[in-house]
Amino acid sequence: MNDRHLSDLLAFLRYPSVSTDPARKEDVARCAAWLAGKLESIGLQAATYPTPGHPIVVARNAHRADRRTVLIYGHYDVQPVDEPELLEGETPDPNRHWMTSPFEPALRDGVIYGRGAADNKGQLFSHVCGVSEMLEGSRELPVNLVFLVEGEEEIGSVNFGAFLHAHREELRCDIIAVSDTGMIAPGVPTFTYGLRGIAAAELRVTGAASDLHSGIYGGAVGNPATCVARLVASLHHADGRIAVAGFYDDVTPLAEWERAAWSRLPLTDADLQRVTGAPDLVGEAGYSALERVWARPTAEVNGIGGGFQGVGSKTVIPREAFAKLTFRLVADQHPAGVFAKVKAHFETHCPRGVRLEVKQGHGGEPYLTSPNLPAGLAAQNALRRAFPGREVALIREGGSIPIVATFRQVLGVETLLLGLALPDCRAHAPNENFPVENFEAGIRLNRALLEELAQK
Amino acid sequence: MNDRHLSDLLAFLRYPSVSTDPARKEDVARCAAWLAGKLESIGLQAATYPTPGHPIVVARNAHRADRRTVLIYGHYDVQPVDEPELLEGETPDPNRHWMTSPFEPALRDGVIYGRGAADNKGQLFSHVCGVSEMLEGSRELPVNLVFLVEGEEEIGSVNFGAFLHAHREELRCDIIAVSDTGMIAPGVPTFTYGLRGIAAAELRVTGAASDLHSGIYGGAVGNPATCVARLVASLHHADGRIAVAGFYDDVTPLAEWERAAWSRLPLTDADLQRVTGAPDLVGEAGYSALERVWARPTAEVNGIGGGFQGVGSKTVIPREAFAKLTFRLVADQHPAGVFAKVKAHFETHCPRGVRLEVKQGHGGEPYLTSPNLPAGLAAQNALRRAFPGREVALIREGGSIPIVATFRQVLGVETLLLGLALPDCRAHAPNENFPVENFEAGIRLNRALLEELAQK
Repeated sequence: MNDRHLSDLLAFLRYPSVSTDPARKEDVARCAAWLAGKLESIGLQAATYPTPGHPIVVARNAHRADRRTVLIYGHYDVQPVDEPELLEGETPDPNRHWMTSPFEPALRDGVIYGRGAADNKGQLFSHVCGVSEMLEGSRELPVNLVFLVEGEEEIGSVNFGAFLHAHREELRCDIIAVSDTGMIAPGVPTFTYGLRGIAAAELRVTGAASDLHSGIYGGAVGNPATCVARLVASLHHADGRIAVAGFYDDVTPLAEWERAAWSRLPLTDADLQRVTGAPDLVGEAGYSALERVWARPTAEVNGIGGGFQGVGSKTVIPREAFAKLTFRLVADQHPAGVFAKVKAHFETHCPRGVRLEVKQGHGGEPYLTSPNLPAGLAAQNALRRAFPGREVALIREGGSIPIVATFRQVLGVETLLLGLALPDCRAHAPNENFPVENFEAGIRLNRALLEELAQK
Repeated sequence: MNDRHLSDLLAFLRYPSVSTDPARKEDVARCAAWLAGKLESIGLQAATYPTPGHPIVVARNAHRADRRTVLIYGHYDVQPVDEPELLEGETPDPNRHWMTSPFEPALRDGVIYGRGAADNKGQLFSHVCGVSEMLEGSRELPVNLVFLVEGEEEIGSVNFGAFLHAHREELRCDIIAVSDTGMIAPGVPTFTYGLRGIAAAELRVTGAASDLHSGIYGGAVGNPATCVARLVASLHHADGRIAVAGFYDDVTPLAEWERAAWSRLPLTDADLQRVTGAPDLVGEAGYSALERVWARPTAEVNGIGGGFQGVGSKTVIPREAFAKLTFRLVADQHPAGVFAKVKAHFETHCPRGVRLEVKQGHGGEPYLTSPNLPAGLAAQNALRRAFPGREVALIREGGSIPIVATFRQVLGVETLLLGLALPDCRAHAPNENFPVENFEAGIRLNRALLEELAQK
């Protein structure tokens, strides 16, 4: 391992670039400036663009018309530390407390610990180091390259779409590569060709003018908490299918080759049960848990509330209740269309005696590409070169990265999702980590990827 | 109006006998001592009995074997003040703020304002004044009398049952009278012959070991919030009937005479809708709202919760969710039996993939007597004498006063519920009040009641 790469990554990790925290605004800006300086120092032309929020860093080599153009996307902002105060006499719990300071990255047993180690500084920086090595060796890259690195990914990329639109000519490219996903197991090269989208909604049901005594008025009026429960219960059939009319209309079915490939992966439903600690795996009939998470849409309650929340009992009929919902979508569902169907469903199913409001929340398009397009085959070759002797896992993921669909819409190109984080990387949690060997594999991957893509 | 009666009541109201507040323990004790002294001063033998909580006051005349024995129950403790701080520049809102100090009773337009004015000091004290007048005039009551006044009614009468058991020989009586309920409208003498019971339960559903990312795991595992919603939704059929097997087995049907009598009352479903501000009145099919509240059991959610409660969205599958429920019961349902059926129902209906806990909460028996038993007819005569020219409203109430069932179990006698408070008495709320004319009517009622009961 090149010592400078590691010491540079540790320097990158020391910036507390927490995008959601207004008190960290200067730290976020300093992190962007450091990254631009680093990209400049390895031989690229780098610029930092202000946005209404945090800056966007763009770097490129000198482009030539006879080469293909590859855009590597990443983000330099990180999640908050999110650690409860350690009470007097309490032993730190690694599930809740950092064992070492989140912004003083530590190396233990070949693993880098620190906020952003995996998500996304470590993964992004392996590409930076790969490019650095190629430029040092040959003074030339095999492709036209653009690094596009934002500082607001953890807060919904709020200014990124507008930036893409405004700069779409300069950002024109043939393919996009992103390492911000996961590997299914240590050492298993993993190519993600599908992501779920999302449509958020909030139900609010109101009844009487104030909380009512459940003895004096119970039986006379509708109970908003009961009504919210009935609306939530109306979302699913007994077999786990979603009962919203037309919900599955635009769903691309799971392909037979996917089902066959996934059944051979070194990742099973038993692994999912162990990781979650759930009493059992349940969901839509006819699919394995992995298939349900990766290839089927869902309707989940993220929060439900109403009435008395304290210890014991208080005999009220609450005046209002709510449910916060997200629907995970698969190709070719669209958030706006799904929200409209969900809203109509709730309006049809709302019991009498209460008022219902259905508010639309954020949305993100699902993404599905073929891993066997020329660029996808090139990426598979690169993964085999970075992880010699291992079969490439072709997977989808259940989470949402809405900008991937935005890339397709605005720039008209596909995105290669080449994850380097392990399942226990603890992204968004205390003790986030990234093994040095994954960092090294990422550097190998970058070099192989640019070479493979140059030929497609 | 006898000026001394009113000034005595105001003195009684000045004691801040808030039973739930440990800081008021001495005030509660002083209030009990004052009441015992007052009862002694009018010619009764009074005693104050300590309990593990607040004292119980008992007073009696000299009993004679040839007279019937009447026990008048009441409570001298009161609800907390429960007033939010008035912010700088905020105008006091009579729904939230006291217009005059709760323990400095004020007389405005013939109405007494103060904590406890209606619940229960004012109502109780009208009986004390009635007895006082009779003793002053004739030096003799027409009945053997027992006043039994507790100081823990507002905190669930926690020590009252044990006291009743321990003193059941001294408290032996033929009938009990209580003025701690309401009149359906000003000037309408009201006899309550039924109360609902209560059975409380809490559902807790747990799933995965921690909150899960709804993208990464959504579809694989059960969602506790969804499961709680489905369990709550399973409680009712579409027509509003409760779907728990055997729930209605022990329900005494609403009698035809009750339906007919209630339809003639100066209290309608429209009044209920106006008072509650509900968009519509809904509930079990086949009954008016008044019938549902007074004569039919219910299942209400008092609180529901789980997952993200803040503004916006957080894409988690919550690790647990709960619902707090109370079932209002009618004769001859029993809390323990209903809880057992409800628990079995939830265990049968709980979706796979989660763990369910059903906890039993507090319970209270319903009460139903006939208004046309000899003592009931006597009470109706007394009400007609206290409110000349008005028809007596024979009603049930939807709330629960569990000690009434305890009286029947321990002492083996019925209870006459002769309410003197108006619908807008604001019991348990700021600006609690009791009209002087109701106080006077209560004094007339006491005299008439003891005379009528003497002859039955």
